[in-house]
Amino acid sequence: MRCVKVRAPATIANVVCGFDCIGFAVENPFDEISVELINEKTVRIEHIDNFNLPTEANKNVAGRALLAMLEKVSLKKGFKVTIKKGMKPGSGIGSSAASAIGSVFAANELLGKPFNSNDLIEFALEGEFLASGSKHADNLAPCLLGGFVLVRSVEPLDIVRLNSPKLFVTIIHPQIEIKTSEARSVLPERISLKDAVSAWANVGALVASLEKKDYELLARSLKDKIIEPVRKRFIPKFDEMKQASLMAGAIGGGIAGSGPSVFMLSKSEGIARKVEKAIAEVFASTGIDFKTYVSRLSSCGVVVEEFS
Amino acid sequence: MRCVKVRAPATIANVVCGFDCIGFAVENPFDEISVELINEKTVRIEHIDNFNLPTEANKNVAGRALLAMLEKVSLKKGFKVTIKKGMKPGSGIGSSAASAIGSVFAANELLGKPFNSNDLIEFALEGEFLASGSKHADNLAPCLLGGFVLVRSVEPLDIVRLNSPKLFVTIIHPQIEIKTSEARSVLPERISLKDAVSAWANVGALVASLEKKDYELLARSLKDKIIEPVRKRFIPKFDEMKQASLMAGAIGGGIAGSGPSVFMLSKSEGIARKVEKAIAEVFASTGIDFKTYVSRLSSCGVVVEEFS
Repeated sequence: MRCVKVRAPATIANVVCGFDCIGFAVENPFDEISVELINEKTVRIEHIDNFNLPTEANKNVAGRALLAMLEKVSLKKGFKVTIKKGMKPGSGIGSSAASAIGSVFAANELLGKPFNSNDLIEFALEGEFLASGSKHADNLAPCLLGGFVLVRSVEPLDIVRLNSPKLFVTIIHPQIEIKTSEARSVLPERISLKDAVSAWANVGALVASLEKKDYELLARSLKDKIIEPVRKRFIPKFDEMKQASLMAGAIGGGIAGSGPSVFMLSKSEGIARKVEKAIAEVFASTGIDFKTYVSRLSSCGVVVEEFS
Repeated sequence: MRCVKVRAPATIANVVCGFDCIGFAVENPFDEISVELINEKTVRIEHIDNFNLPTEANKNVAGRALLAMLEKVSLKKGFKVTIKKGMKPGSGIGSSAASAIGSVFAANELLGKPFNSNDLIEFALEGEFLASGSKHADNLAPCLLGGFVLVRSVEPLDIVRLNSPKLFVTIIHPQIEIKTSEARSVLPERISLKDAVSAWANVGALVASLEKKDYELLARSLKDKIIEPVRKRFIPKFDEMKQASLMAGAIGGGIAGSGPSVFMLSKSEGIARKVEKAIAEVFASTGIDFKTYVSRLSSCGVVVEEFS
């Protein structure tokens, strides 16, 4: 039977001031996902990594997304999915989004592209819901489309592709676990109107900075008084890492998704490498294991690697 | 002595989802303000309209702004200001901003432009504070600069000029008084994080729509669940006027500033005139006097009319 292999990239959601609505894709790390058509209306999952993710379709992020897709397909076929994760689940860099988007994107290719982008995101939202208990598309949309994306609304789905600057990102992934549900539980239910105004002014400025390629404005807009203060407690040395990154020349950055990863944007690979060194030096003092990445921003999101 | 006469336009602040941070300038209505240098370090104010605004400099919006400027000027001169207001104070379309910006802009021209845009806005903020009890720059900045403007922050002042579309605005000014302080008193002190996320997603989408000239996205982003629901009660027939405007082809709109004026954006003058007719028909049933305007958006803000 036919098989499609895709590469689904990591994504950084929230982007400091754009909680639950802005995200961007990176080139590295990424998951490799192969989907094969099978003659049975079901979803079979195989992992070729060491993360021990569930293989029962209904309990698996990719499985849930593909089951949602299968409901809309009249033909009596199913999918066999083979997932090789390049990023650890629970890292905050869109691991579940990569699994869900990679799978539905590959399956859609196999079926001759009957579904559009919004359809694919809708299917993948079922996977995100399984992973985090909330339907948010700020990892899914950039994973699918690449670059910077704004999710204006999830119900109904309204996705806005933003101008994507040629920037580099440094990511540090401390090897600690923060459950998305735990990271959500510390969020305030209500916030002051004053802080909200400051937040939406920053979101507006962030979008303007991307469209205008104004990186000084980008730096000024990467501020958050609402989410970062309550979530940074989960990340050892967060303030020190941020400070060291800015000293090393980063434009700005903060918590990736709900953490524990931290991202920093830079204008060149050279600066991003300096930021990596600075951040690693600070974090090493904790004695906790960590992993770092330096990557370009991805301009295209998920891509087909092989079609056989 | 030398004299500068300027035209300072009306401005629409908030722009539905951008409470306290987004505003735009229109061509009409406008104030005409003449400023003359005098040989005494003081500010004298004369009105040539029927609005009975205070002439004591310290109690007048333009006076306060000019006094703030005079404090930064070493020479022993002062200003005589003659104001002919083209818009009624308390209309919600930036009357106080036009007085303040018009005056400091004209005075700066007379002095040989020692001050930059941010300086002028800082002086004018003193006038806004007198008028509304709060320092907001979302009328001042577009009045000075023209087009759509985002105020990322007031302290420190951070103004972002946005792309300004070639749109038309219809304004209806019901002849009722809403005190800015009263309009502020109904605002919630705290809002749900969920509503806040929806608001900042709309602000991001609004900015993207202006940069991309995507008027369908502009229409979708002109939504507000936080301010409009509590302020529209001051404006008779608000929902009906909005509905009639959309039926007549408007892109969208809402309360101008803190009201009572209502604005609607349209793609052409023809549609803006139809919107004017539709809105006037709805409002006429209240029996309350009203005034309407149809105008292009202003691309330049305050301008010099005469230099003598």
